[in-house]
Amino acid sequence: MERVTIAVDAMGGDRAPAVVIEGVVDYIRENSHDDTWRITLVGKEKEIHKELKKYPHARLDRLEIVDALEEISMKEHFLSYWRKREETSIKKAIDLIKDGKALAMVSAGNTGAVMAMAKTSLGSMKSIDRPALAIKLPTLKGNSLLVDVGANIDSKPHNLVEFAVMGKVYMESVLGIQNPRIALMNVGEEEVKGNELTKTTHNMLKRLDINFVGNVEGRDVYIGEADLIVTDGFTGNVTLKVSEGVVDVMLSMLKREIMSNIFSKIGFFFLKKSLKRIKKKLDYAEYGGALLLGVNGIVIIGHGSSNAKAIKNAISLSTKFVSQKVLEKISCEIDKMHKSLKELKYV
Amino acid sequence: MERVTIAVDAMGGDRAPAVVIEGVVDYIRENSHDDTWRITLVGKEKEIHKELKKYPHARLDRLEIVDALEEISMKEHFLSYWRKREETSIKKAIDLIKDGKALAMVSAGNTGAVMAMAKTSLGSMKSIDRPALAIKLPTLKGNSLLVDVGANIDSKPHNLVEFAVMGKVYMESVLGIQNPRIALMNVGEEEVKGNELTKTTHNMLKRLDINFVGNVEGRDVYIGEADLIVTDGFTGNVTLKVSEGVVDVMLSMLKREIMSNIFSKIGFFFLKKSLKRIKKKLDYAEYGGALLLGVNGIVIIGHGSSNAKAIKNAISLSTKFVSQKVLEKISCEIDKMHKSLKELKYV
Repeated sequence: MERVTIAVDAMGGDRAPAVVIEGVVDYIRENSHDDTWRITLVGKEKEIHKELKKYPHARLDRLEIVDALEEISMKEHFLSYWRKREETSIKKAIDLIKDGKALAMVSAGNTGAVMAMAKTSLGSMKSIDRPALAIKLPTLKGNSLLVDVGANIDSKPHNLVEFAVMGKVYMESVLGIQNPRIALMNVGEEEVKGNELTKTTHNMLKRLDINFVGNVEGRDVYIGEADLIVTDGFTGNVTLKVSEGVVDVMLSMLKREIMSNIFSKIGFFFLKKSLKRIKKKLDYAEYGGALLLGVNGIVIIGHGSSNAKAIKNAISLSTKFVSQKVLEKISCEIDKMHKSLKELKYV
Repeated sequence: MERVTIAVDAMGGDRAPAVVIEGVVDYIRENSHDDTWRITLVGKEKEIHKELKKYPHARLDRLEIVDALEEISMKEHFLSYWRKREETSIKKAIDLIKDGKALAMVSAGNTGAVMAMAKTSLGSMKSIDRPALAIKLPTLKGNSLLVDVGANIDSKPHNLVEFAVMGKVYMESVLGIQNPRIALMNVGEEEVKGNELTKTTHNMLKRLDINFVGNVEGRDVYIGEADLIVTDGFTGNVTLKVSEGVVDVMLSMLKREIMSNIFSKIGFFFLKKSLKRIKKKLDYAEYGGALLLGVNGIVIIGHGSSNAKAIKNAISLSTKFVSQKVLEKISCEIDKMHKSLKELKYV
């Protein structure tokens, strides 16, 4: 088996580089029996060395460090000059993929920055028109994947179909969810509902050989009736941000209510842990934890609030992408899909 | 002053006709000194009479009843055959406006049905391309108005500009909010962000003589930084329904957490009232409470959960629409807006 190198952005996340290094060390410890992987930590070399000193017994022979002078903060907004920031840890980690020195990159950093830089540096996979950002949302029944949440703004029906196919391959190969239920975000459940984009997309999806369960409305997203929900990046982005807004406003209202009298203060004392657990569950949406599907490389974006375990899991996830040949499968399934669309005279 | 007749759908709402009649009787009692209005109750005559018997001292000389054999349930989805349901209380109330027998209609019934029937029967106001459904959302700072939440699906930039102008006139004339802060829903705050629709709309809005405060993102909707947020009906509808979904899922999670152990059960006991208040505040979104702006008539859609006070207030609101000449002002402001757009060479 060929050797796999994973580039890890040491500077990404709210508690970087400490938790990132901790996660990497944990990954190394748990996978020492397996000689097929290497990790390249990208970030401020001095800080990385300082953190590594905390783990004197860690085996570091499978670890390399690439120095990066700059970092991008979690709060920076997307700006076009990002593509010029060659010295940032995110850009350097992505460029390791581009230069053939790594197969995947993991970052818990600024989602917008990772996405923009990866799209620019790596480019789209052959036969894929537009990459898409996929995000896992908590539902009453577990999780579902929402694609796209903002990699694109103006999408065409065939883009949404590509999102569906890429998401399906990911779910089957990596998550082990066979024949995932795929739904289309729309303003009504009936087939005739929607705008030009969703009406055409609905027609295309239902004719393809996938488990298309029809339209879902905004209120169904969190119910969990679908494993995978496709939407254009504008709507996906609004969905995500409105969700965050509602969670924030509910918690703020609750805080106000709690402070309003002694009874609710007592109640809060007993319910505190429950509320924290709920907040944490829903923060999922707030902090991302996303995949960029459709670029020439494996790009995994952890939550900004990732702890060491989340970092370790993200690295495992990236090796699973490689071992399950997800990019190759996506390529193959997309080709099949294009053939079907041609037969159905959509293209 | 001319005499104003308000048509009230007696069958609309979760607790109709009882609370509707109670609200009407309250309105009559409080406004007996004023001889400028009349109310026409539309619904099943027998049931209306039965309810009215509860108020033997009410002055009913200003009240008329129009019998309607059918009603539309709160849960029916929009279907095209609605326009044929001539015998429903909603259709008959709307037709009173069409036939010049009423100036306004108030219903706490099925929002989709009222909207569809009013659009078809009354038609758009002259010089307005598309009517819009406006809904009041609770924010941390009070309320804001979101337009459009689903009267249209595919919108053009000039439609969104019309929504802004109609919303502004309503806020100034009826709510007394002068020069409301108007924002555009988008995927980023920067002017360059967005799809073709929002980029062009942004450019148009910023050149008009309104208090345009720029783009807001999904997460800002509930913060309250704008009085009026314009968006296309697809995005508005998703915004509303995602919000409902998040509230539902948070409350379900909380319920599960509460049942999980004795401490959280104790906590819930003390916090119960607070949680109820929050749920009620946020149910605003769930139950609607909307205005249809831009049709030839005043159409006010109360929450499905409206109590008698809400019905009474909706009737007062409709008389304010008349006394403040809102439709005339909208017409005038829309003409001005079109003139400006012409000068700016947008049309």
